Amino acid sequence: MNITNDSYLDAVWADICAVRAQAPLVHSVTNLVVTALNANVLLAAGASPIMAHAIEEVADLARISGAVVVNIGTLDSHWVPAMQLALDTAYEAGKPSVLDPVGAGASDYRNRVLADLMERRPSLVRGNASEIMSLAGEFANTKGVDSTDPVERALAAAQALTQRNGCVVCVSGPEDHVLAPDGRHAVLRNGHPLMTRVTGVGCSASALVGAFAAVQPDAWRACASAMAYWGVVGQIAAERIAPHTGTGGYATVLLDVASTLTEAELATTLRAEASA
Amino acid sequence: MNITNDSYLDAVWADICAVRAQAPLVHSVTNLVVTALNANVLLAAGASPIMAHAIEEVADLARISGAVVVNIGTLDSHWVPAMQLALDTAYEAGKPSVLDPVGAGASDYRNRVLADLMERRPSLVRGNASEIMSLAGEFANTKGVDSTDPVERALAAAQALTQRNGCVVCVSGPEDHVLAPDGRHAVLRNGHPLMTRVTGVGCSASALVGAFAAVQPDAWRACASAMAYWGVVGQIAAERIAPHTGTGGYATVLLDVASTLTEAELATTLRAEASA
Amino acid sequence: MNITNDSYLDAVWADICAVRAQAPLVHSVTNLVVTALNANVLLAAGASPIMAHAIEEVADLARISGAVVVNIGTLDSHWVPAMQLALDTAYEAGKPSVLDPVGAGASDYRNRVLADLMERRPSLVRGNASEIMSLAGEFANTKGVDSTDPVERALAAAQALTQRNGCVVCVSGPEDHVLAPDGRHAVLRNGHPLMTRVTGVGCSASALVGAFAAVQPDAWRACASAMAYWGVVGQIAAERIAPHTGTGGYATVLLDVASTLTEAELATTLRAEASA
Repeated sequence: MNITNDSYLDAVWADICAVRAQAPLVHSVTNLVVTALNANVLLAAGASPIMAHAIEEVADLARISGAVVVNIGTLDSHWVPAMQLALDTAYEAGKPSVLDPVGAGASDYRNRVLADLMERRPSLVRGNASEIMSLAGEFANTKGVDSTDPVERALAAAQALTQRNGCVVCVSGPEDHVLAPDGRHAVLRNGHPLMTRVTGVGCSASALVGAFAAVQPDAWRACASAMAYWGVVGQIAAERIAPHTGTGGYATVLLDVASTLTEAELATTLRAEASA
Repeated sequence: MNITNDSYLDAVWADICAVRAQAPLVHSVTNLVVTALNANVLLAAGASPIMAHAIEEVADLARISGAVVVNIGTLDSHWVPAMQLALDTAYEAGKPSVLDPVGAGASDYRNRVLADLMERRPSLVRGNASEIMSLAGEFANTKGVDSTDPVERALAAAQALTQRNGCVVCVSGPEDHVLAPDGRHAVLRNGHPLMTRVTGVGCSASALVGAFAAVQPDAWRACASAMAYWGVVGQIAAERIAPHTGTGGYATVLLDVASTLTEAELATTLRAEASA
Repeated sequence: MNITNDSYLDAVWADICAVRAQAPLVHSVTNLVVTALNANVLLAAGASPIMAHAIEEVADLARISGAVVVNIGTLDSHWVPAMQLALDTAYEAGKPSVLDPVGAGASDYRNRVLADLMERRPSLVRGNASEIMSLAGEFANTKGVDSTDPVERALAAAQALTQRNGCVVCVSGPEDHVLAPDGRHAVLRNGHPLMTRVTGVGCSASALVGAFAAVQPDAWRACASAMAYWGVVGQIAAERIAPHTGTGGYATVLLDVASTLTEAELATTLRAEASA
């Protein structure tokens, strides 16, 4: 991907169109809070979601899917083997896989499970600053599932993770950073603070990364396009709501914009930089 | 039910009013994606939902409920015995039961569990074309939980199922077909493509079939009335939303229309045929 | 808390501001239907939700949280030890804890689990009339998760519970009553019938009680403030929706009002009495 603005825009729009045209099947093993929102965000983007966590079928489903997304938000020992198998199957089948390390650092158990899941080689990891720092072994100021660290503090951790694991790493926050093992680095400056006041918006970003990676073989570009799309959607939604609307109306309009975004809207809103 | 349009309308409206007046308790063992939407759709229709899956209590709850709904969308070996017991209890207690075979054909495990659940004699089965074909043992083009087969291709499979199992079978899609073992066949021509872009709309149809079967002893009529209600609601919602509304606002208006539908709205929208 | 109206208003508003300013982490072990709504209500109020139920981490999470909320709506034997440990940890750490006895009386299993959880000394209990009566050992007309008993019938049961367990007890319904072991009694006369037609609104009240108890050390006052806030939000939302809006739009506006409520709106709407 070139660093000029116009070609960046073209790449993002081409990937949005590919998701809409191909409607990739995205298999999620995700948390109990965000299932409906994630499915609705994937549907709004044009993808086809399936949520399934039975150890007896995750391998079958991972093989027929375009991407696998694992999210540990409501971790359960009964689900961990399915998360492991889903990631292993994706790796063996050459399918892209996304790990969302929700709440990394909040408990020892979460950290142990994450260490194991990282060894199964997810192709992409997306988290907030605290989660990425915790995942890289740094001390992080996690507060439950919310980050209390600035994005910039997590860049070195993200750099270390992408090198150590050979995966694309996205640190999301007021700015989203997408780093590739080969040194490419995209910075996305869209979004809106209201996105942090609706549960599952971050997890939905990870789901979208899966959808985009299913249609775009360059994992770094897929991740940057998905984050650009979601940030632009979140920003336009905040601009569109009426003055006294709160988080309820905002959540509704998020899906409205996601399902109707036009190239013109993307072009006038996208603020992104990439260094290749 | 007579085949003339007017008496069909009267029957559907009478069943809608019976659900509102009796507020039947509907016990669902359903999937982790659609719990909230299904509960909200049941509440909007005037029914009283309870979601419970503990093997220790499903029999108690099935016995005090007006209907049992089992949905295998996020199958889990820990839940299967509860699904079996809920269906067995409903059968023994003479209560109507609905099976929604979400994702039938997507994995061997799903197919094995479904074969077992079908032997527990649910009184009604509702699925999309691919699911009904898979359930009947035919080759189906399942794509995760979405159908890629036209409804018409599934009619022979539905016919075979209704004969073999003695249950009412509903194939839903652009048109909904409701078949009874005695040969009655209703075709419902309402609905809107946006219904496929909100997660759980199909599962909510199954939940509604349970609510209607709890108040209408003729299972075929109950199923046809529930599908007519939901299709009309989905179509009116699509007509009512503002031009640039997407899937978020549509989902909201679905519940608005479901909770406020009038006889006049039903009368001007319903398009149905039945051959008795 | 004084019984005059003005000081009551001041107390409620001060507690609302404290939640917004401190953004307390609230750890919920809750049911599968209400996860998203509860998280969104907590976020709208300004709190920081975490949902987690793994036995391996609930103690860690309870210790870093401001309050623990346990809700048995979709009971599961695999989850019960985590509910027990979460309540035990909160008690040992001196953190407030809330028990929501959803569906008490609907099955023997539910009653047995609740008897055990009550022994773990939750500091607050919130339920509808039937649930509170069942919890106190009285015969109750439970219909699944909905109450069929009037609030007034449950006051003696609530009185008995608060004495026997030394906890604050809230009976919610058309009027909400909040009783403390020392005899204090608040009556809150806000709310709207539409609140019973959206799934999880009662469970969200319990989540809010946790958030308020995390910032207000007087558990009775915290509970009364949380219920006052939620009742006022529910009433204003009903007044704000357009004429033909149903339960979908109402649910959206609930979150809008919760996330934007002003002191003036609270002052003109609150109807409460307290006897100290």
